[in-house]
Amino acid sequence: MSDLEAIRAAARQFREERDWEKFQDPKSVLLALVGEVGELAELLQWLPADRAKELISAEPLHTRVGEELADVLVYLVGLAEQCGVDLAPAALAKIEKSAIKHPVQQSRGVAPDRTGQ
Amino acid sequence: MSDLEAIRAAARQFREERDWEKFQDPKSVLLALVGEVGELAELLQWLPADRAKELISAEPLHTRVGEELADVLVYLVGLAEQCGVDLAPAALAKIEKSAIKHPVQQSRGVAPDRTGQ
Amino acid sequence: MSDLEAIRAAARQFREERDWEKFQDPKSVLLALVGEVGELAELLQWLPADRAKELISAEPLHTRVGEELADVLVYLVGLAEQCGVDLAPAALAKIEKSAIKHPVQQSRGVAPDRTGQ
Amino acid sequence: MSDLEAIRAAARQFREERDWEKFQDPKSVLLALVGEVGELAELLQWLPADRAKELISAEPLHTRVGEELADVLVYLVGLAEQCGVDLAPAALAKIEKSAIKHPVQQSRGVAPDRTGQ
Repeated sequence: MSDLEAIRAAARQFREERDWEKFQDPKSVLLALVGEVGELAELLQWLPADRAKELISAEPLHTRVGEELADVLVYLVGLAEQCGVDLAPAALAKIEKSAIKHPVQQSRGVAPDRTGQ
Repeated sequence: MSDLEAIRAAARQFREERDWEKFQDPKSVLLALVGEVGELAELLQWLPADRAKELISAEPLHTRVGEELADVLVYLVGLAEQCGVDLAPAALAKIEKSAIKHPVQQSRGVAPDRTGQ
Repeated sequence: MSDLEAIRAAARQFREERDWEKFQDPKSVLLALVGEVGELAELLQWLPADRAKELISAEPLHTRVGEELADVLVYLVGLAEQCGVDLAPAALAKIEKSAIKHPVQQSRGVAPDRTGQ
Repeated sequence: MSDLEAIRAAARQFREERDWEKFQDPKSVLLALVGEVGELAELLQWLPADRAKELISAEPLHTRVGEELADVLVYLVGLAEQCGVDLAPAALAKIEKSAIKHPVQQSRGVAPDRTGQ
């Protein structure tokens, strides 16, 4: 079983045991994901930009950021399940599509927004 | 190689070829993730709540929602990479932690927020 | 003094007294706003869509939602201040622009997304 | 009429003319707000943190950021209307509450998160 399938299965079992599937309409799950992204933002918001990577790589932020990233992933997997999207191939396909959209020659070293995206 | 590792490797190669690693500080990547979550929200916002699942499971929304979910995942994997978090075990551990926080007996059928979360 | 000016002045005084202006770069303030939007999402996420309006209009949600809306507004005013945007006329102008984009005849009763927005 | 009342009145008239009030349940409006915050994030995401203020204060970003801020405000006012919150006094009250939570003596010059918020 792949890692995303393992997460999907564990999350589904968690919800089924609690009879929580009934709350899982897509707009509610998306708002839950927004809530978790918000918690991630609260952890990063006032970090100095040039030290943020270092600070979230060490404790106490490492563990807390990891938990919020995990929460976002769990809701993302749940939302993908609802619309029948297989996330891993979808992500790989999207990276390929971006590679075509941003040819190496024109994009090299230029901030993404400024290549005419 | 697991799903998430494959995505991480493909995304890193994409960025390296374009010399885009230098834009990848955590706060910027998180804002990029917020941008993708916003695009997902724009697709779902006005759908009737009770038909949203059906509507995003069929075209034309299925493909578009799949692409936005993919974009969110790619940035999420990138952010996890920055702080050295291994997302799959982190997500499975978080589900276990939630299972302890929300015992089946007390949670069954009660909306998550109302169990005293 | 208008509403928004009063909020801007009170927020600026609050920050100046604490010497917090130095943390107020736009990306940090935007992440703080995202954090508050996330808290709002956490309050609404599992409410039944057809009862949400009623539930947030009554206690205990009324006060909590009001506080989160207030937090979002304070950061929004702060961000507008940073880029020198006068929010009230900007909002009125944007409504007029939307009115032109969505002519009454073609838009009437059709969900916004489906008018070809 | 105050700023925020003028925006509320103009937005309500815009919706009523298009018979769009029926789409305005709180969760949908919040997702619309998330969509606009996402557009704001897309404008700021790759800006160098230390030049972001300068860049969004000048064209072409000044106008675009102003429009996105305006969109966020319009949905925020709409959501406040739905739960019967008067945004301006709520924001001023929240700033006062924050002032008590973060006494000047202990907060001065220390990033908000690190005062034990």
